[in-house]
Amino acid sequence: MDREFWSYLAGFLDGDGSIYVRLKPNQTYRYRFQVAPSVVLYQSMKGKKFLADLQLTIGRGYLRDRKDQIVEYVIEDSESILFMLNEMIPYLRLKRDQAVLMTEIIENKKTVASAENFLELAGKVDRFRDLNYSKRRTCDSEKVKDVLKREGLLTP
Amino acid sequence: MDREFWSYLAGFLDGDGSIYVRLKPNQTYRYRFQVAPSVVLYQSMKGKKFLADLQLTIGRGYLRDRKDQIVEYVIEDSESILFMLNEMIPYLRLKRDQAVLMTEIIENKKTVASAENFLELAGKVDRFRDLNYSKRRTCDSEKVKDVLKREGLLTP
Repeated sequence: MDREFWSYLAGFLDGDGSIYVRLKPNQTYRYRFQVAPSVVLYQSMKGKKFLADLQLTIGRGYLRDRKDQIVEYVIEDSESILFMLNEMIPYLRLKRDQAVLMTEIIENKKTVASAENFLELAGKVDRFRDLNYSKRRTCDSEKVKDVLKREGLLTP
Repeated sequence: MDREFWSYLAGFLDGDGSIYVRLKPNQTYRYRFQVAPSVVLYQSMKGKKFLADLQLTIGRGYLRDRKDQIVEYVIEDSESILFMLNEMIPYLRLKRDQAVLMTEIIENKKTVASAENFLELAGKVDRFRDLNYSKRRTCDSEKVKDVLKREGLLTP
């Protein structure tokens, strides 16, 4: 995987990919939400072999067949996302801000030491909404705040 | 424009672009059809600046605003298409066959010396239908053949 490979992949991600983070409610987590990052490349079923080849070359992530005949190449583990985005950030043009924000969020996750810290992290996740022009986002930092307060984890 | 630039653009073209040739009926042409090649990159209006920057860097082609809020960066002159595809062919993964076929068609166009030659060229254009999974293609080599025969340009 040389510089041409990563610049190619950056172009493909800019053209037909997504970088996003979700806040998923989960009572088993200390702060009641999972911070779930994703990098996804899309293709119609006809492009499945192409995505499978990429997955094999990179050796990270997995393929997921959707019901609408779209295949997704999904990378969800933080370490793999950091590795790939760091390689691609120099070449990304459309999604560089998302990539940089993603790396910040993943690094910040490691140092969360309080509900206040977690709320700050959730605030960073909110910023993806604007960068990605997301229309629906079910969980944002306001909801995190409400839950943390309700559970007595955050001093009001 | 270095190798990283062209590999990036190849990735973007694979992800969100098209390479195609149309046969356009035109009575002012010797063989009654224009062979019109296009390389197109797509973006929503929000990505217009990105496409404008690419156009400025490459110095070829032009932007076209569609009515459905999509912007196209279109390259239609043969010399520019040859130049760009030759740079990108080493990096293309999904659309390499289309790119190679396109360069063949553009080179062949220069040497057409008879209606028979032109019909062969139209046959190559037909091959884009399969490569691009095109559903509608109004003009194909069968239609070209009919017109050339009708006009007495092709010996039956």
